[in-house]
Amino acid sequence: MSQREKRKVSDSALVSSHLMMPQDANFQGNVFGGTIMKLVDEIAGSVAAIHSKKNCVTASMDQMNFYEPVIIGNLLILKASVNYVSHTSMEVGVRIEARDLMKDQITHTGSSYLTLVALDENRKPTIVADIIPETDAEKRRYEEGKERRARRLAAAGKN
Amino acid sequence: MSQREKRKVSDSALVSSHLMMPQDANFQGNVFGGTIMKLVDEIAGSVAAIHSKKNCVTASMDQMNFYEPVIIGNLLILKASVNYVSHTSMEVGVRIEARDLMKDQITHTGSSYLTLVALDENRKPTIVADIIPETDAEKRRYEEGKERRARRLAAAGKN
Amino acid sequence: MSQREKRKVSDSALVSSHLMMPQDANFQGNVFGGTIMKLVDEIAGSVAAIHSKKNCVTASMDQMNFYEPVIIGNLLILKASVNYVSHTSMEVGVRIEARDLMKDQITHTGSSYLTLVALDENRKPTIVADIIPETDAEKRRYEEGKERRARRLAAAGKN
Amino acid sequence: MSQREKRKVSDSALVSSHLMMPQDANFQGNVFGGTIMKLVDEIAGSVAAIHSKKNCVTASMDQMNFYEPVIIGNLLILKASVNYVSHTSMEVGVRIEARDLMKDQITHTGSSYLTLVALDENRKPTIVADIIPETDAEKRRYEEGKERRARRLAAAGKN
Amino acid sequence: MSQREKRKVSDSALVSSHLMMPQDANFQGNVFGGTIMKLVDEIAGSVAAIHSKKNCVTASMDQMNFYEPVIIGNLLILKASVNYVSHTSMEVGVRIEARDLMKDQITHTGSSYLTLVALDENRKPTIVADIIPETDAEKRRYEEGKERRARRLAAAGKN
Amino acid sequence: MSQREKRKVSDSALVSSHLMMPQDANFQGNVFGGTIMKLVDEIAGSVAAIHSKKNCVTASMDQMNFYEPVIIGNLLILKASVNYVSHTSMEVGVRIEARDLMKDQITHTGSSYLTLVALDENRKPTIVADIIPETDAEKRRYEEGKERRARRLAAAGKN
Repeated sequence: MSQREKRKVSDSALVSSHLMMPQDANFQGNVFGGTIMKLVDEIAGSVAAIHSKKNCVTASMDQMNFYEPVIIGNLLILKASVNYVSHTSMEVGVRIEARDLMKDQITHTGSSYLTLVALDENRKPTIVADIIPETDAEKRRYEEGKERRARRLAAAGKN
Repeated sequence: MSQREKRKVSDSALVSSHLMMPQDANFQGNVFGGTIMKLVDEIAGSVAAIHSKKNCVTASMDQMNFYEPVIIGNLLILKASVNYVSHTSMEVGVRIEARDLMKDQITHTGSSYLTLVALDENRKPTIVADIIPETDAEKRRYEEGKERRARRLAAAGKN
Repeated sequence: MSQREKRKVSDSALVSSHLMMPQDANFQGNVFGGTIMKLVDEIAGSVAAIHSKKNCVTASMDQMNFYEPVIIGNLLILKASVNYVSHTSMEVGVRIEARDLMKDQITHTGSSYLTLVALDENRKPTIVADIIPETDAEKRRYEEGKERRARRLAAAGKN
Repeated sequence: MSQREKRKVSDSALVSSHLMMPQDANFQGNVFGGTIMKLVDEIAGSVAAIHSKKNCVTASMDQMNFYEPVIIGNLLILKASVNYVSHTSMEVGVRIEARDLMKDQITHTGSSYLTLVALDENRKPTIVADIIPETDAEKRRYEEGKERRARRLAAAGKN
Repeated sequence: MSQREKRKVSDSALVSSHLMMPQDANFQGNVFGGTIMKLVDEIAGSVAAIHSKKNCVTASMDQMNFYEPVIIGNLLILKASVNYVSHTSMEVGVRIEARDLMKDQITHTGSSYLTLVALDENRKPTIVADIIPETDAEKRRYEEGKERRARRLAAAGKN
Repeated sequence: MSQREKRKVSDSALVSSHLMMPQDANFQGNVFGGTIMKLVDEIAGSVAAIHSKKNCVTASMDQMNFYEPVIIGNLLILKASVNYVSHTSMEVGVRIEARDLMKDQITHTGSSYLTLVALDENRKPTIVADIIPETDAEKRRYEEGKERRARRLAAAGKN
């Protein structure tokens, strides 16, 4: 294990943008939470696959709050990167922003923390490369991710 | 408020089933968490709209664990009902099952608790009908929903 | 054949609900018949697969009338079960309802009878389990399904 | 009514072709009946709108048999035209063919007869232009459509 | 090579029609160029596959101008055929029309020339049947396609 | 015009990433050119809207070559920015990359230049903000975009 591979956060970080259309929203024009979650899960899965070079599945998504409404015509912008890595799982953080195309205005509408597990060819969890946080923000997210993982394990033990 | 309308849990409970197809899954055939979350959010929104007779938006989704993989060809079965109601928001619980069509086997793959807020014509939160839990299970879910809401409020205060 | 397996109607019956969106309707907001037929065929296929534990294909759909319009924002509710079983084919009946989310109103918009054939690995028709109607409604549907099958065979002979 | 407008069959006839993809089919590669019905209904609606210059809705679809399987990779070819016109409704016939792209082989997989009703701005049935069958095939289809309509009315009276 | 197979233009020509829906357009109702390009590429791929009896991929699309807007509710009509064939590639021309369903009006909104390459089982370019232009229009398109190919090769050499 | 607003290239530049799925590709797993064009047009439209603060439509797409195949499972990465601005139109350049998730390998599969026109409320072309190229790459793209526009105008005059 002393030679476990390590990769930088920036090597697997991704950004994506998606124009919100009528089929993504209800009749008042509010984009469905589910539309956002689906895109959040998709980008988290890509980040985890790039980091681990393995097929990954989502094991859990932390509580997710939608602070501000996203509406039809907004550009949904997702910024995703690996926060923390344990043995076979990774926490990926996704920052969710809504950009009003007609104004210079970007709103932080929520954040999401997903735990993804890397699987081998037999669909069994398999060890992944460790993560190297470099910037201050990455280091802070690493520590926060570590704490969240501890809380999740404690909560799972209690159930 | 003494005359606040009340409706039964069973009046707005819904069941839905969805055949999982290749576009819903990754290359090992595991259905994406995001596909499931999108369907969960959709049925929760319908339940909340039926209960409140209002347009509703998802304010949060509690932590969601995917205990068991769902695979292509499974029938995803969602069972959703209002657990608890506060002034302008409702907790909807969604039980997620995967049914193997070729075997008599149904797996409980996860559960999800969503908080939805009813909006008036000006997109402002508006009071909703209260809920009447009738069966023992409904009463238990009501108490659990009440506790989860208290914990969410406490957690929000801490952040 | 004396030991042909038998299964209950209730073992394979399914319910599903689908929120009707702009992409499902024309410009006056009327949901396309084709959107409904596609969902009807999907649930019928799942019911037939659950009953037969085989891959099934739709061989025919009886005449289908749309008595009442379904509009955007309605919840389309489908209730499907096996009515009748012959050697290698099953008649699945689907009741189609439209629920107005904002009112306590459910409209019966149509019914559909589909004949599905179970296929083996070589895509050849293969014998399926027999059906056990239990309730009065199931027994009535069994007799009606039997008659419809006789009429279909007679009509096919005439063509 | 003596001056009721008349239009030719060929003025509103349409052809369409659609490549069948994995999302259109089950796990043995057989295209779902529902996928075909949806496309059939879509082209029938366009034909009826072109003929009537009105918004149209599907009132019924006659029994539809799937004689031959359509598989992934086939080109589904639909040929649709108005067969018969009554006061406010039209029968549109759709011929369904499957073309194997890799062979010079086109299979007639089924035919479908839909009755569409033209609606005015208040969503009430409204009179449509009469049809002028010109070729022998169009005249034959006109007579057959007239008979089918009589049978449908008779059947409706019996229910 | 003296016995290279030859096929007629008409043997692989296709027509298709697609009703433009809200999800295909922006908020003023103008259909996206990208929606049209996707359908153009799809029909060109089918034409090339029918002509060559091979799996084909798009190697390039010539400059494409959108002369007239297409709007929601229009029927997009695509007419596609092989213009010219070189050794392993084909130029497919697609004429794009928009039909206003409510008026007898068809607008030529653009034309597109795509070069598709036939691939063998190892995904390597493979020789395709030659083309036989028969009508005057086909012969003119053949000569124009030949010139466009020469210009493309010249332009590629310059880059 | 002396006070025509000016905005930086970086203010409207966008990046997006999309996981390529079975529905995006043919039966050998090659992603359709049309799938890529649709996503290219979508991001170009968002960039043009952010720059101009107007509703925009695609007027043309320059010749587009697909140098390298993109396959199912690749992450398609699009990088788009305004290259050049004339009075009412903008050239948006889109760099298309395919990332193999399992290897540290990114392939440049093509580039695309689209001309988009800003429309006012009456759907008439309307003047847009000028562009400020800042980096060397932006300045080079500005000059190249200017030349391409001159060539397009010359070519249009010739047709």
